[in-house]
Amino acid sequence: MAFERIGSTEVWSGKIATVRVDRVRYDDGDEAEREVVAHPGAVAVVAHDGEHVFLVEQPREPVDEQALLELPAGKLDEEGEGPLETAKRELAEEIGKGAGQWKHLTTFYGSPGFSDEEVHLYLATELHDASAESDENERIEIKKVPLSELDDAIRDCRDSKSLIGLLWLKTYEL
Amino acid sequence: MAFERIGSTEVWSGKIATVRVDRVRYDDGDEAEREVVAHPGAVAVVAHDGEHVFLVEQPREPVDEQALLELPAGKLDEEGEGPLETAKRELAEEIGKGAGQWKHLTTFYGSPGFSDEEVHLYLATELHDASAESDENERIEIKKVPLSELDDAIRDCRDSKSLIGLLWLKTYEL
Repeated sequence: MAFERIGSTEVWSGKIATVRVDRVRYDDGDEAEREVVAHPGAVAVVAHDGEHVFLVEQPREPVDEQALLELPAGKLDEEGEGPLETAKRELAEEIGKGAGQWKHLTTFYGSPGFSDEEVHLYLATELHDASAESDENERIEIKKVPLSELDDAIRDCRDSKSLIGLLWLKTYEL
Repeated sequence: MAFERIGSTEVWSGKIATVRVDRVRYDDGDEAEREVVAHPGAVAVVAHDGEHVFLVEQPREPVDEQALLELPAGKLDEEGEGPLETAKRELAEEIGKGAGQWKHLTTFYGSPGFSDEEVHLYLATELHDASAESDENERIEIKKVPLSELDDAIRDCRDSKSLIGLLWLKTYEL
């Protein structure tokens, strides 16, 4: 063990995130305070039909972006729903697709220096039309990007989970 | 414009991050509240000498990881220091190297759904020994990973900025 948590105080609680200040003790006896943004975690989906990868564009208020290009994605905010189920639901809600094949690609921390957010990344292929209703996604626009333009999409992408998904697609899955 | 920010209230301020609740108005007249974790931003460096890529392992208290494998990286927390300068300083502090060649690879948001953290990613080559003193990095261990084992490192990596850097290295820079 490099450290153990010996105390934790919640300092703010919002609709999505909670902030706490932890006290940790290292194995050499040193102690320190760490600020942690607790987040429920998220999923993101690389969905392609062999010709196009399906992305979405949406306003991202925290970073002042009017239309950020991203993978279909969503928070793990439904009680009792696992990551793969959330991925399936989000794919239907955001781009109106289901998939015959699902594959877990990797799971990573978004910003492990200050947040515990974990992102589960999936590949969805054998796509078919599927519909799902959601009121939260009304500002999302679907962007079909030809796989022949994948390099351009990677160079323009400014969202970490989407960059990982598109780079993984190009490197290992095409 | 998809939206504009019409109000902002700071609800918590810590050593690294600040949390605010913004009020935004969309172009259709709807209004909503958005929780934003404001972060100074960071840099990360893909440093290789043609045979090895230089990674670091460190405890990451927010995600309860005793030793997370990452790129050398650091926060933009020195007043007046630009991202490239921070990258150079962090490379010297964390792995004791300087570089003859620096190249900006990409810049992205870590978690644009709830944080404004932006990460600037650089490639450093033509490495040479350099020393720098820092008291904050004493728990960092250097890991030299052979480029022949890059796929394994990508599969094991659980940190978003490091995954992007390693995938970018494999895809575009080797």
